[in-house]
Amino acid sequence: MDNERLLKQIQFIVEIDKLKQVFRQNVVIGTARNENDAEHSWHLAVMAVLLSEYSAEKNMDVLKVVKMALIHDLVEIDAGDTFCYDEKGYEDKEEREQKAAQRLFSILPSDQAQEIWDLWREFEALNTPEARFAACLDRLQPLILNYNTNGHTWQKPGVTSEKVLKRTGLLEENAPELWKYAKEVIEDSIKKGYLKG
Amino acid sequence: MDNERLLKQIQFIVEIDKLKQVFRQNVVIGTARNENDAEHSWHLAVMAVLLSEYSAEKNMDVLKVVKMALIHDLVEIDAGDTFCYDEKGYEDKEEREQKAAQRLFSILPSDQAQEIWDLWREFEALNTPEARFAACLDRLQPLILNYNTNGHTWQKPGVTSEKVLKRTGLLEENAPELWKYAKEVIEDSIKKGYLKG
Repeated sequence: MDNERLLKQIQFIVEIDKLKQVFRQNVVIGTARNENDAEHSWHLAVMAVLLSEYSAEKNMDVLKVVKMALIHDLVEIDAGDTFCYDEKGYEDKEEREQKAAQRLFSILPSDQAQEIWDLWREFEALNTPEARFAACLDRLQPLILNYNTNGHTWQKPGVTSEKVLKRTGLLEENAPELWKYAKEVIEDSIKKGYLKG
Repeated sequence: MDNERLLKQIQFIVEIDKLKQVFRQNVVIGTARNENDAEHSWHLAVMAVLLSEYSAEKNMDVLKVVKMALIHDLVEIDAGDTFCYDEKGYEDKEEREQKAAQRLFSILPSDQAQEIWDLWREFEALNTPEARFAACLDRLQPLILNYNTNGHTWQKPGVTSEKVLKRTGLLEENAPELWKYAKEVIEDSIKKGYLKG
């Protein structure tokens, strides 16, 4: 095989198999097994397809949202998953993730490396409708999992409804109908004892 | 929450979490743990984004290919994974999967149920460039995993290079450059003893 471009693409496809081994705080519904980033990214991508109608900003490029969902956690292959309520972990998160992006995306042919870099940067910056909507889904999906696993992640030390509301607040402006749903889930979770009020 | 449409969509999103528990024959690279359908679907969707340039038919709708990758195995939540070299399992595969599609897709609001049904039927029928390319990726991804796990699945009884070549043959017309790569992988795998020649 002398197609260097394809060999680089395949090398990347092999490398990102490791995303299946980066575990998150959530558990898969009905199990005690932690969800991994590949599963989470798949779930988000399906949600992007099904829920795009709820974006406050219309004329979104749904393919771009789906691409962001698929690649947004790749850097965690090197940087690991940082629990969203871990303030200490957040101190050097950006530095760790920048290094990871550098190593991982550079495996690809340069045009595609650039595309994935740009998508990831856009997602992180929240400056476009697509990035904001993808980030809303990234807040909503663990909320749905927590609600269906007796608040598994919410039982961890330091998690309060105030923090969960703050983190989910991104939905208020960017996906008001999803925000309405999320608020009801949080209220009901406090009632059920899944989340400290 | 009185938004029945959204509640149906959320119910579906919760239901398909089960895809994370449908295990395939392949193992995740570097582990002894079987890959599940959610991880596989994520991997395929990323491949659809990165490799679409290799489709023999140009002007493909990449978003459609990605959607097919994301939903193509949902029916296995009820029907289970049928090993591609299991002739007995294939006898009632269609019937089991049709029933599963009926139950699962009907959870969605009717317009989206219809969209997912149509995408899945199109994928299965191989009648469009998008379906053929998505199916090519569905052949290529396990080949890449097998090549990187000492031919894990290929060591199972009844698997021969002839059968693997036949199954991978879909790539010859629909993605010639990927076919060239696949053929080399198969030849090298025979040499290395990963696959019976």
